Amino acid sequence: MRTALLAASAALALTLPAAAQEEPKGAPAPSEIVAAAPKADWTAIAAEDLLVMTLAPDADGKPRTVVIQLIPAPFSQGWVHNIRLFARAKWYDGISVNRVQDNYVTQWGDPNYDNPEATGKPKPLPEGLKVMTEGEYTSHLTEWQARNRQREKEQQDRSQTIPIIAPVVRDPYPKWHGSDAYASWVDFYDGWAVASAGQGWEQIWSPTHCYGMVGVGRNYSPDTGSGAELYTVIGHAPRHLDRNIALVGRVIEGMEHLSSLPRGKGDLGFYTAEEAAKRTPILTVRVASDLPAAQQPRFEYLSTESETFARYADAIANRRDPFFITPAGGADICNIKVPVRRVAD
Amino acid sequence: MRTALLAASAALALTLPAAAQEEPKGAPAPSEIVAAAPKADWTAIAAEDLLVMTLAPDADGKPRTVVIQLIPAPFSQGWVHNIRLFARAKWYDGISVNRVQDNYVTQWGDPNYDNPEATGKPKPLPEGLKVMTEGEYTSHLTEWQARNRQREKEQQDRSQTIPIIAPVVRDPYPKWHGSDAYASWVDFYDGWAVASAGQGWEQIWSPTHCYGMVGVGRNYSPDTGSGAELYTVIGHAPRHLDRNIALVGRVIEGMEHLSSLPRGKGDLGFYTAEEAAKRTPILTVRVASDLPAAQQPRFEYLSTESETFARYADAIANRRDPFFITPAGGADICNIKVPVRRVAD
Repeated sequence: MRTALLAASAALALTLPAAAQEEPKGAPAPSEIVAAAPKADWTAIAAEDLLVMTLAPDADGKPRTVVIQLIPAPFSQGWVHNIRLFARAKWYDGISVNRVQDNYVTQWGDPNYDNPEATGKPKPLPEGLKVMTEGEYTSHLTEWQARNRQREKEQQDRSQTIPIIAPVVRDPYPKWHGSDAYASWVDFYDGWAVASAGQGWEQIWSPTHCYGMVGVGRNYSPDTGSGAELYTVIGHAPRHLDRNIALVGRVIEGMEHLSSLPRGKGDLGFYTAEEAAKRTPILTVRVASDLPAAQQPRFEYLSTESETFARYADAIANRRDPFFITPAGGADICNIKVPVRRVAD
Repeated sequence: MRTALLAASAALALTLPAAAQEEPKGAPAPSEIVAAAPKADWTAIAAEDLLVMTLAPDADGKPRTVVIQLIPAPFSQGWVHNIRLFARAKWYDGISVNRVQDNYVTQWGDPNYDNPEATGKPKPLPEGLKVMTEGEYTSHLTEWQARNRQREKEQQDRSQTIPIIAPVVRDPYPKWHGSDAYASWVDFYDGWAVASAGQGWEQIWSPTHCYGMVGVGRNYSPDTGSGAELYTVIGHAPRHLDRNIALVGRVIEGMEHLSSLPRGKGDLGFYTAEEAAKRTPILTVRVASDLPAAQQPRFEYLSTESETFARYADAIANRRDPFFITPAGGADICNIKVPVRRVAD
């Protein structure tokens, strides 16, 4: 008898061999909804917005590549500018993963910069870096809000059923957005989960510190970081960092190469001097558009404005596929991972 | 210049060397509040409620031990009975970690039971296992609710400031509990984060699928699992599993030995037959009270009814320590990790 053992995550189809216990019939799983999405619901990611980070091969000699999607305007564009500049100056080549703190972050940068376990001199920074203010952790999105209000009005008029993401706000009609412990409003903006602190036209928006998001290490305020030190979230979303630090992208391939690294034994998960051999070398970081055309990876994401995405989010909030007996009735914004897929050449 | 790079997690003090950039003065970090807790705020965990799981040594020959705290009554006690029975029958000795799915779970059990990659016959189960119903995924806590109501009334009378965990519910007075996308009520019950689906006296409570929680793999409904297959959460809390599966405890030491394992390439993160060498062997699992007294680990948790815990939760929801410029004003229940510490002999 073959069994499910534990339900598939949203990102993975529950595909079990034929010898399995007969699977009860039910509604499609979120992954099945995504798999059936029409081509038109997918949006290509520009090669200029992809970073290809090559780590040293693993202990078995297998290559390790991580692909990061940079966040588009209006978010964090000063830091994104710097990151492309670091990559093009080949400044990231030869740095390493210096910190892995369980249920928090994996962080990479110059092992001799601001590292309690540093043994050498820090690498000089390239010319042309921008310096950002703390105000740039957030953005106004007035045009988008106007568009959303119009859409909501239309949906109300049509009495259309669209998903309740966070049903804590029990509005008379369901809508795309919700609220949570960290934000008065959470929503999706052009493929990214965003959160707002204000109300109405005073809203300021920030990207959310979900699993796999990439951010910029910084010093104490008013320092905002340059992009020389980057980290990715490897545990439960540390959303208290939203509006306190710049988010610049997300890992869209190879996340396991960063999340499964040994945890550091030093303060904050830094590898100690005795553990220096555990620092994973970063061989190269390239903007995909700078690679020869044949080597450029191609990715696309499921449009968060599409009907498919609405059904996907609804299915996550109300799992009706066979494993589940009690649908949750809601979902945390970080559990509604925007589907991203690699496109064959 | 020495810097913070990225703020410490709640669980780890921000202790940096003296050469650091001068740290701005601020309110204590959550970890500092916990470190200053009076002894009376800590509650001992009974040795009968601790499982000591010894994995095979790592690639460097270093021992790997994981300690799990079993959940107390009224939650999941049928499964907890079974788990002690499996341990005492030494049934778990020689099983392995068979599945590691990124941002989801690490799962261990008999590699020949319900594993798409099985090559041998499953191990016979011990005698005396209980069979539970789905109704046992949740519990009524009427006595506790009455106690809470009395406490709230007193607090209202004293106009005392206590933390807002999820400020989405903007009550006229702050209180301990909150609500989120998954539950009408989230709170702490005798050291555990719990969530409720109902309202008032109709409330049914379940433990929450936070990072490090341990649950029971199961087949399709109406199967509820025996405890032979266990998993722990290694990513963002899959709270949609609450009320759908039995939670039986949490990892309180050695979590990194389960979270940093290589991810499986098979369906649902199972190791494929070609990856069989990656299955981490579990040498032994013992109930701590069965060990010789000198080998029994001793742990205690910070009482969730203590004043210290209230200040700790408040400090997590409103980070005022120096790294932060914008306190969140709230916190997800899974980011308010109940502090647990090892006690010296």
